[in-house]
Amino acid sequence: MPAPRECRSDCPIAHALDVLGDRWTLLVLRDLLFRSKQRFTELLASPEGIATNVLSDRLRRLEEAGLIARGPDPDDGRKALYRPTAPGVALAPTLIEMVLWGLDHGPPGASAPPPELVERMRSDRDALVAELRTRHLGDGTGA
Amino acid sequence: MPAPRECRSDCPIAHALDVLGDRWTLLVLRDLLFRSKQRFTELLASPEGIATNVLSDRLRRLEEAGLIARGPDPDDGRKALYRPTAPGVALAPTLIEMVLWGLDHGPPGASAPPPELVERMRSDRDALVAELRTRHLGDGTGA
Repeated sequence: MPAPRECRSDCPIAHALDVLGDRWTLLVLRDLLFRSKQRFTELLASPEGIATNVLSDRLRRLEEAGLIARGPDPDDGRKALYRPTAPGVALAPTLIEMVLWGLDHGPPGASAPPPELVERMRSDRDALVAELRTRHLGDGTGA
Repeated sequence: MPAPRECRSDCPIAHALDVLGDRWTLLVLRDLLFRSKQRFTELLASPEGIATNVLSDRLRRLEEAGLIARGPDPDDGRKALYRPTAPGVALAPTLIEMVLWGLDHGPPGASAPPPELVERMRSDRDALVAELRTRHLGDGTGA
């Protein structure tokens, strides 16, 4: 994966934050991974109200970093479909831990995920991650 | 935990990113949690080269969000010691997953953590998280 900026250190958290460290990027990945959104308009419609130019920028950076891939929309060749690559799907455990932290320690009202999904995040995480790999990557071996 | 900004949605990831969503905040928490740094000067000395004003701002925001607590330095009462609270320590699993992702999918050279710590992150995570709780919170029941 090419680093989008010069490396700040040899810390893997710093590398991760060079790609993911803002208020929007992980929300875009959430939509691609857990909500199976694929189209720009679907991503734009999420409740956080991401701006068009911010979404365009984050999709471009995620593609440059190799976390998502863009292909033509079979329904409309002028439009694009986005899907997570293997490194993108590999962020599922980080996102899951962030969901659980937000539920346990965020303000009340952070109640978006369905209870059965939260229960799987808590007690059946490995199987959930495997399922996401299969859903997004097919046989689960790569992208 | 008070929300530092108006909630963007009821998604727990969005709440988490309202506090944590930038390139620096999780690095400050990394230093407090895994490197047991406590002093402003120690945090400032990390290899990423955080600027003084950025560090001040992030410490203030983390304290406002209830993720860290500030107390007087017994060696110099004019200075402060910072320590993670229970909600701060509860971010350990998120940071661990980010470390493992950065090691597996970041550019080569993301090699900072000692190999024995990485091995514990991969195969002995729950015990490692419990150990961090005890180290930072004492009996592990809260902060």
